[in-house]
Amino acid sequence: MAPILLRSMGNDHNEYIKQQVQVKNPYLDTMEEDILYHFSLSTKTHNLPEMFGDIKFVCVGGSANRMKAFAQFIHQELKLSGNPEDVRDICEGTDRYCMYKVGPVLSISHGMGVPSISIMLHELIKLLHHAQCLDVVLFRLGTSGGVGLAPGTVVVTDKAVDYSFRPQFEQVVLGKVITRSTELNEEVASELLQCSSELQNIPTVIGNTLCTHDFYEGQGRLDGALCSFSHEEKLEYLQKAYDAGVRNIEMESTVFAAMSRVCGLKAAVVCVALLNRFEGDQITSPHDVLVEYQQRPQALVSHFIKKRLGLIA
Amino acid sequence: MAPILLRSMGNDHNEYIKQQVQVKNPYLDTMEEDILYHFSLSTKTHNLPEMFGDIKFVCVGGSANRMKAFAQFIHQELKLSGNPEDVRDICEGTDRYCMYKVGPVLSISHGMGVPSISIMLHELIKLLHHAQCLDVVLFRLGTSGGVGLAPGTVVVTDKAVDYSFRPQFEQVVLGKVITRSTELNEEVASELLQCSSELQNIPTVIGNTLCTHDFYEGQGRLDGALCSFSHEEKLEYLQKAYDAGVRNIEMESTVFAAMSRVCGLKAAVVCVALLNRFEGDQITSPHDVLVEYQQRPQALVSHFIKKRLGLIA
Repeated sequence: MAPILLRSMGNDHNEYIKQQVQVKNPYLDTMEEDILYHFSLSTKTHNLPEMFGDIKFVCVGGSANRMKAFAQFIHQELKLSGNPEDVRDICEGTDRYCMYKVGPVLSISHGMGVPSISIMLHELIKLLHHAQCLDVVLFRLGTSGGVGLAPGTVVVTDKAVDYSFRPQFEQVVLGKVITRSTELNEEVASELLQCSSELQNIPTVIGNTLCTHDFYEGQGRLDGALCSFSHEEKLEYLQKAYDAGVRNIEMESTVFAAMSRVCGLKAAVVCVALLNRFEGDQITSPHDVLVEYQQRPQALVSHFIKKRLGLIA
Repeated sequence: MAPILLRSMGNDHNEYIKQQVQVKNPYLDTMEEDILYHFSLSTKTHNLPEMFGDIKFVCVGGSANRMKAFAQFIHQELKLSGNPEDVRDICEGTDRYCMYKVGPVLSISHGMGVPSISIMLHELIKLLHHAQCLDVVLFRLGTSGGVGLAPGTVVVTDKAVDYSFRPQFEQVVLGKVITRSTELNEEVASELLQCSSELQNIPTVIGNTLCTHDFYEGQGRLDGALCSFSHEEKLEYLQKAYDAGVRNIEMESTVFAAMSRVCGLKAAVVCVALLNRFEGDQITSPHDVLVEYQQRPQALVSHFIKKRLGLIA
């Protein structure tokens, strides 16, 4: 066994097993080739262990531009050699997702909504498995609507909850609905909160995150093409969410939490609130203010990564 | 009233009303500004009637590159002046979706999955409403897995069905689940089938389309990061789908059909099958074959548009 694997093992064999990425599919290792179709990568045409074996942190987010900007930012933060502008999209053979590798950090876009991120997660987890990665921490860096929070506040998710505020994700398997737990890693969340206290201007809270399957009716917006409820009914629903510990609303956290948990990946959801939904529905802040808000989860996770790598005390 | 409106009206006032795009939101027209956030457009900063008032056909599809290629293709097909290479992304202020206007045709990408296309549809329907468009036909041009069909077959959707093969879409509104019908416009579907008979090499069938919320477990794939069922159980589910009239599987058709129907838009789903799911799960056809398959829905819809515009008999 290579020295790097021995160092990762610690003394406890169970600990070692836990830190591997665990695919839960008995057929996978019997396949002659595995085509990761939406990444435009394959086990036959790419040497995945060589390309990705040293990955320790995977950061995912909805927007392709934002995840490219994050790759360039973390390149600077880690003081790596080469020009940050030169980061290359590993998935350039497809426009479904984009992917950048910067040292031990992988930055990937996932589009909007549970189905879009779920395809990416299946293929990411298989990639990490094929590449024999160990001790990987997974972050979703996103934007969200705040519930009773000032715009610009960062929410580190405690539990991702569904429309009834239950910490579960419903997955259809061959026409039957099964539920999976959506609890996230408490240790990573606390460490992120600690990081926020060490930084300027990144107001951060831990709270539950409501994950919906649309942006308008499911989130109680009054400004969609369809709206069948009153302003008062909207506020009542948001108040119920607040009372259930919800502090922000987005569209990917439940499946992200559920799949990470099943596959033994430590994971955290870090989203900035772009507006306070008690105050309105439309995102009216100026462009430069929104850009600065979107950098806050990036700065927080960068600080976490630098601490874990021993680059700062 | 402008002559062009009179021509669209026919003799029957009810017919006129029907052909408008109908937003179902009493608050919309009372708003001082409507920001179509994910398009980076707004009623205050853009003259939507001037930009979009002449739109008669809207074509949407998952991939941004494919919808750009479609815009360039339809530019050539309609023999418009100017260089097709010069089509400009109207949504260049955001990377959530891309949008191209070519004469009376709008080409828009919607990403993958129901939530992603649902955000686009809310903002598209509001855009068509603000722009006072009339007589719009909406197409989804996509890729899909075939059920008992040869790869390359185009499926025009009869009914979009859910995981239990019911022609309905479940929408959460303020924490309550409501269902909407997913029947599509029969007239447009028949006209598309007629078009296919007038073209070479576009084998086309009308069938039901199964819409799932993921690509792996929900579609009975054995090659995801998670798989808890056997090959036999997979085949049994696909056979049940086939027996219920399902001929292909994709991830957007139910909400597309439901929202179009509610808002009075005539709509069709036209997807090519990239593989026969009875034969396998991975998409293994060579790149150039897949590219040719993906052009088939485009060629079919282009033929439909040219007939409707009177450019061919």
